[in-house]
Amino acid sequence: MEIDVTQENLNKALSVVARVAGGRSSLPVLSNVLLKIINSRLSISATNLDIAITQNIGAKVKKEGSITVPARLMQDFINNLPTGTIHLNQEDHKLHIDAEHYSSTINGVSAEEFPVMPEIKNGAKWEIDANEFKETLQRVVFAASADDARPVLTGVNFKSTNGKLYIASTDSFRLAEASIEGVSKDVDLLVPANAMQEILRIIGSENKISFQHDDQQVLITCGEVELVARLINGKYPDYKKLIPPKFTNIAKLSKEDLISITKVSSLFARETAGSITVQTDPDKNKVSVNSVASQVGENTSDAVADVKGKGEITLNSRYLLDALGAVEGEDVHFSFNGKLEPIKISGKNSNYVHIIMPLKS
Amino acid sequence: MEIDVTQENLNKALSVVARVAGGRSSLPVLSNVLLKIINSRLSISATNLDIAITQNIGAKVKKEGSITVPARLMQDFINNLPTGTIHLNQEDHKLHIDAEHYSSTINGVSAEEFPVMPEIKNGAKWEIDANEFKETLQRVVFAASADDARPVLTGVNFKSTNGKLYIASTDSFRLAEASIEGVSKDVDLLVPANAMQEILRIIGSENKISFQHDDQQVLITCGEVELVARLINGKYPDYKKLIPPKFTNIAKLSKEDLISITKVSSLFARETAGSITVQTDPDKNKVSVNSVASQVGENTSDAVADVKGKGEITLNSRYLLDALGAVEGEDVHFSFNGKLEPIKISGKNSNYVHIIMPLKS
Repeated sequence: MEIDVTQENLNKALSVVARVAGGRSSLPVLSNVLLKIINSRLSISATNLDIAITQNIGAKVKKEGSITVPARLMQDFINNLPTGTIHLNQEDHKLHIDAEHYSSTINGVSAEEFPVMPEIKNGAKWEIDANEFKETLQRVVFAASADDARPVLTGVNFKSTNGKLYIASTDSFRLAEASIEGVSKDVDLLVPANAMQEILRIIGSENKISFQHDDQQVLITCGEVELVARLINGKYPDYKKLIPPKFTNIAKLSKEDLISITKVSSLFARETAGSITVQTDPDKNKVSVNSVASQVGENTSDAVADVKGKGEITLNSRYLLDALGAVEGEDVHFSFNGKLEPIKISGKNSNYVHIIMPLKS
Repeated sequence: MEIDVTQENLNKALSVVARVAGGRSSLPVLSNVLLKIINSRLSISATNLDIAITQNIGAKVKKEGSITVPARLMQDFINNLPTGTIHLNQEDHKLHIDAEHYSSTINGVSAEEFPVMPEIKNGAKWEIDANEFKETLQRVVFAASADDARPVLTGVNFKSTNGKLYIASTDSFRLAEASIEGVSKDVDLLVPANAMQEILRIIGSENKISFQHDDQQVLITCGEVELVARLINGKYPDYKKLIPPKFTNIAKLSKEDLISITKVSSLFARETAGSITVQTDPDKNKVSVNSVASQVGENTSDAVADVKGKGEITLNSRYLLDALGAVEGEDVHFSFNGKLEPIKISGKNSNYVHIIMPLKS
């Protein structure tokens, strides 16, 4: 391989791709990025075997070829070079990189050792608005579990019903679901949440994002970037039946106020793993949040609210803060029934549902 | 104690003071801040036994008293309250804190258990320009050692000679020295570098900073903040004799260029603990920096320079980057003699000296 590329393009592509490299030490080549000439362009790829990301950039190709080089070193090196033309010249397993005032040789590994994700040849194909997808996914993805003990909960569920795409995550303690209009294909996918976190970083100014999937993998294309993720096997929980159809206690209040008093209360909930108690008082038109730590002290904070139903419920303050960060609008509804039933947090958007399971108080 | 204070003042004071709390678990009260009414003001203090910081703020005092409360909880709590009046009411070892919508009780510990640093009654007293002191100290303090094996090297040396105050730090691998005019007192102090790091954070818009010291401690006063530090015992190395009086090789070049090529070269020096080789070439009017990592590859970068003397010297890239971050001006002089003699980095300021010991190459 012998090519010229611009520092700007190569640097941007490496910053998108190199993040997934380096995870598993059992296969050292996974800490490398693959550089390969495809159709007179430079293709830059990295993979951790669950996710593969590829970006193609323009290149002046003098000689075809391919090589893999350490991802972190390559990224740090290119990032520190001045803008302008970079000359890449492969000689066996060495990559010579030259720019004005800079001359380096990086020891690489043969491209043949780099694992290739199987191609998706057939399968459904559809696309949606990139911006709407990004905004929607952001409100959902954080509710997925980080615990591999139940693999299905580490995924984001995509399911179409009557032309709507429902996107949901749950770690069994809380659940987030949002929907997007206009997906006519039959979709039922369970995509790893960390692949979706990468997609959130990748989506930039593109208008559309496209999906193609078989029963093993999904290919997501966003501009010049392609992400392939292995799908998670297993049946996603039938979460819709968890959402209570109505509530005896509903408080409507300023989202900012509820965030403030929850934050303060959480400071006193450190020894109880974030446990706080929310009380609704229709007589005084207020919501109060209380936390007690036998060691350090206690706190009660309140906020003005429109309240229906007098009651109290105990929940994890971090889950409440996460939910409040995800709902839209200036006001928020905090709704609950009995002490063991799910709590609902909702904002302006009718297409977003957030549910938190209470703690025993 | 029963007082009213403003959230703004209390929050600011806690952010200055509370940092030094919490270091040693052997004495739990050290993770608390002391609140005490002194002369109708609220005095807020924390200490780690080596350093004590106190700030006084205005308060509407209804009842005198004192108490200690957990520093981190108190700081986080006050920081999250809205601006406005805060009512503090002490009841035995509990502190009730009330603000609009917020009501807390923090469990404290008797103020009598809080260790008091001995007062400095006599000793020399002098003051200097706060801004000049801050700028000068910043160029010096980072060169102190973090290794307690040689306690004198963990200090910053302050020594007056002929009306000049010399401030110096060395970890035996590099040395930074700067001087300030106009100190007529006889000063010879060895102050812990971490106390000086705190002073850098404390100095704000004050004009003057004052020093008072006996042979055990130094009291540094900056506006409403007082810092007391234990002095380090021991003889500071006679570092001045380490500075070569003249150099056979001198390169003058753009500081920005030298930073860039050193940074890039340091990427290839990770397996050699940062070792890079600087070459001066008077024929080509350039300085080049070379690093070789047998595993990952190698790099050579160069920059245009005015060069006197052809030669090369090996040094730690991190020390060079630290030094380049500390010298003033657009251009820098990189000067050296033989391969085992100290390297000098100098910029615009004649009152700043930075010396780096070479590595064996």
